[in-house]
Amino acid sequence: MKKPYRKKDLPVAEIRRYLEPGPTVLVSSHWKDDTNIMTMGWHTVMEFSPSMIGCMITAANYSFELIKKSKECVINIPTHDMIDEIIGIGNSTGEEIDKFSEFGLTAVAAEKVKAPLIKECYANFECKVIDEHLLPKYNFFVLEVVKAHVAVSPKYPRTVHYRGDATFMISGRNLSYPGKFKSQNL
Amino acid sequence: MKKPYRKKDLPVAEIRRYLEPGPTVLVSSHWKDDTNIMTMGWHTVMEFSPSMIGCMITAANYSFELIKKSKECVINIPTHDMIDEIIGIGNSTGEEIDKFSEFGLTAVAAEKVKAPLIKECYANFECKVIDEHLLPKYNFFVLEVVKAHVAVSPKYPRTVHYRGDATFMISGRNLSYPGKFKSQNL
Repeated sequence: MKKPYRKKDLPVAEIRRYLEPGPTVLVSSHWKDDTNIMTMGWHTVMEFSPSMIGCMITAANYSFELIKKSKECVINIPTHDMIDEIIGIGNSTGEEIDKFSEFGLTAVAAEKVKAPLIKECYANFECKVIDEHLLPKYNFFVLEVVKAHVAVSPKYPRTVHYRGDATFMISGRNLSYPGKFKSQNL
Repeated sequence: MKKPYRKKDLPVAEIRRYLEPGPTVLVSSHWKDDTNIMTMGWHTVMEFSPSMIGCMITAANYSFELIKKSKECVINIPTHDMIDEIIGIGNSTGEEIDKFSEFGLTAVAAEKVKAPLIKECYANFECKVIDEHLLPKYNFFVLEVVKAHVAVSPKYPRTVHYRGDATFMISGRNLSYPGKFKSQNL
């Protein structure tokens, strides 16, 4: 079994460091007696402070109702070594199986929401739904990140980025250009 | 000067192949006598058909008014060899300079919008603003892609993905897992 990451708190205004590069994420949710996980690729950072994320979740997805009813979820960032779980979770439904048990993942209690953190993931962002204006027409949730946990190391996780057609891009090297940025544009 | 890519039309329902991995993009816009380019990292695919993208553009940005007034823009995907242009465009303002001329880029007429395509970019998606419900509060535009152009090769471009703090992740290798996906989940 995968060794879990040791984690630290991250200021919620800094989650863009992990989400803006565009990784495929796992969304955990909970409502009444039901807990689920889904794989998601359609998300964007929307603001630093309050810390906001927007995401599209197909209404046919079993997680959609759990998130809509509880108005909460956790966005978990898996690393490349979890590719089997990422694909398996995306190709099964919580209507038929308990994904935590099926994929050997550990649910850890979150601090500010009832949806669980996935312990094996590199980062966990606890979120509350704060705007539903685009929900009826586009299934688009606006979330506020209320608590963020990230692995102490490595600094840059090896994430997967879905291209469609069963193909993932694996995050590559990191290059810094500190002298070329104005401070307000960092 | 960079050799331009030879391009083909792409069905608009397939743009997720290029945007879902999360590349930093260049947004071109046009209103009256004014044309501009901005660098953008906060975007997401929202639907296959109609082909939709959501994106957050700070209202202080010079491009914001051009896009809001014209209700159009082009999302251009630059490759890693354009890193100087990507950073330079993000660290300057159209209020002071003509970015096409300043950065040696070629404006090509689009087919369905007045904003120009950036010839040197790997892909160009012509977009119309179709929903402004989240604009006043969050500066969030909902766009429909009405025409898409992509380079004939390479199949997978080497894109840059911003991590904040002057650091970019460069897209790495691509791995396919065709046997592990259900057809409706590709």
